[in-house]
Amino acid sequence: MSNININELAKRLNLSKGTVSKALRDSYEISEQTKTKVLQLAEQLHYIPNPYASSLRRKKSNTIGVVIPEVMDSYFSRAIKGIESVAREKGYHVLVYLTYESFEREKAILNDFSSGRVDGVLLSVSSETANENHVEETMAKKIPVVFFDRVLENVHTAKITTNDFESCYEATHHLLQQGCKKIAYLSISEHLHIINKRMEGYKQALFDHGQTHSGANVIACCDDNEKNYALLLKILKANNRPDGIIASVEKLTTPVYLACKNLNLSIPEAVKIVSFSNWEAAPILRPSLTTVTQPAFEMGEAAATALFNLLGKRNYSLLNENTTLPSTLVVRESSVFNRS
Amino acid sequence: MSNININELAKRLNLSKGTVSKALRDSYEISEQTKTKVLQLAEQLHYIPNPYASSLRRKKSNTIGVVIPEVMDSYFSRAIKGIESVAREKGYHVLVYLTYESFEREKAILNDFSSGRVDGVLLSVSSETANENHVEETMAKKIPVVFFDRVLENVHTAKITTNDFESCYEATHHLLQQGCKKIAYLSISEHLHIINKRMEGYKQALFDHGQTHSGANVIACCDDNEKNYALLLKILKANNRPDGIIASVEKLTTPVYLACKNLNLSIPEAVKIVSFSNWEAAPILRPSLTTVTQPAFEMGEAAATALFNLLGKRNYSLLNENTTLPSTLVVRESSVFNRS
Repeated sequence: MSNININELAKRLNLSKGTVSKALRDSYEISEQTKTKVLQLAEQLHYIPNPYASSLRRKKSNTIGVVIPEVMDSYFSRAIKGIESVAREKGYHVLVYLTYESFEREKAILNDFSSGRVDGVLLSVSSETANENHVEETMAKKIPVVFFDRVLENVHTAKITTNDFESCYEATHHLLQQGCKKIAYLSISEHLHIINKRMEGYKQALFDHGQTHSGANVIACCDDNEKNYALLLKILKANNRPDGIIASVEKLTTPVYLACKNLNLSIPEAVKIVSFSNWEAAPILRPSLTTVTQPAFEMGEAAATALFNLLGKRNYSLLNENTTLPSTLVVRESSVFNRS
Repeated sequence: MSNININELAKRLNLSKGTVSKALRDSYEISEQTKTKVLQLAEQLHYIPNPYASSLRRKKSNTIGVVIPEVMDSYFSRAIKGIESVAREKGYHVLVYLTYESFEREKAILNDFSSGRVDGVLLSVSSETANENHVEETMAKKIPVVFFDRVLENVHTAKITTNDFESCYEATHHLLQQGCKKIAYLSISEHLHIINKRMEGYKQALFDHGQTHSGANVIACCDDNEKNYALLLKILKANNRPDGIIASVEKLTTPVYLACKNLNLSIPEAVKIVSFSNWEAAPILRPSLTTVTQPAFEMGEAAATALFNLLGKRNYSLLNENTTLPSTLVVRESSVFNRS
């Protein structure tokens, strides 16, 4: 079947293109009789409106874009389910864009949005993202952006986060109570606000426990788990190796466990571990993993709700809501000696 | 900054819209002098082409859509990396669409594509998908579709799969050799071709080992892991419980392990387990997990390459290539008693 367009409809009905177009949009300028004629032929010929042409007219895509660094983190998987649950109710499509932790890719995706592909954006920035120009440019084009989890502090818009400082403080305090003397914090970015917030919570807990800030041991991991594994092997082999580890993101858990296994360092006897994670598999690891569990689904819901509020407003750039939902420390075997 | 469009450029340069538009597209009809003038002003005023308007002219979105059932399966995560690696080279965007195992959603996404949002589609169907009409309709609109992993057999196009029959035959054979008498196969769909291929390999191995087909024990799991956990508890409590389990997809591993843990059934002594999985965490589970590991990255690469071949052709609907890349059985503790 050939593609039927407005030209073809107009020709067959002996009407102008403008009349057909208005009839299809149910314009008040067109008589009911003409509308009926146009719609009947359109249906008969299986006319499908070109979404690009429709977008030019309507300037609405009925789509929101979700830009996230990766998909193998169970946080994002659950957050997307929360976003989808709200978008479905509003009759919107959700497109998921992956940056793979690349700032260049994030800029390219947002630049693509700048000219109308989506109505609004939910963004969790890459670990490389150090400035906000690309986000400001998107917002200047009247495409609202809402942050969730990984936010850029300086952008004036709604931000949905969890209590990163407090929950990492609590995790560190827990390891100190279990007898750890040398706790390392595994970072994956020096730019990411949430990773730094967690680091501050970690340092504050050390300080409150009588350790100076120089006692802090922040280890810079990266997006490549083979490199992280090699780095952890080196660190855990050293004489002054850590006896406690806080992994700031879920994906660092596997290289930590593998390095301990390789070096015959038993968890939790020799090294105690806590990871930020929403991993369903946490209870079936050897040993089961103590986690800081984020309210992922709820954060996705809150972010989507904030975005739909903005979509209904003209002066959305004035909105600057911060919503903080609490995380939970779930203690399992990896951090407690003689627990079972 | 206001949005600069072609009208505005034309007015300021005292040229026609058509001339400006052609100059921006580097048309041979326009003099170099005029092109330079247009491009200089466009750059100076930060003119961004509207992608919808551009698409109307070019009828190309420079985007491919990847439609997958979920993101928390490490197979898809790695396959997407393979797809991205090819698309990046070709200068294409990759949009990832999630069906969450819903046929309705899959139809809606493909229907959306039908009118030009993407140039081509890479599809791994949902576990509910039982017929191919929606794919045929997309292809009839000249949007090529290539399948990877979860294919629809009856659609005449390129399909990238792994050797599901053989690899599940091998996994079953392995469990039989380890002494299993009652092996259960956990399915997640009665429709999915690959899940049924795996099931056939399982049944054939039982048959070749002297068990009749009635000895087969196929258990229908679903997308909801809480329900799967409840079902597995019930099955593993029964007197004639299985002593071997083959999980046809990665996500079933966690409820199997949790149910065994809850019932104090030790793995592998009481129950031996193999799972189809690309999970990086397989070695750190208690016990480490024996897997059928698929060539995920390579399958993504092959699928994207096939799609770009189709994009360059007029009669793409005639192409019907089947590419099969082999999986690997990786034996770990969960299937072998007294291994370490």
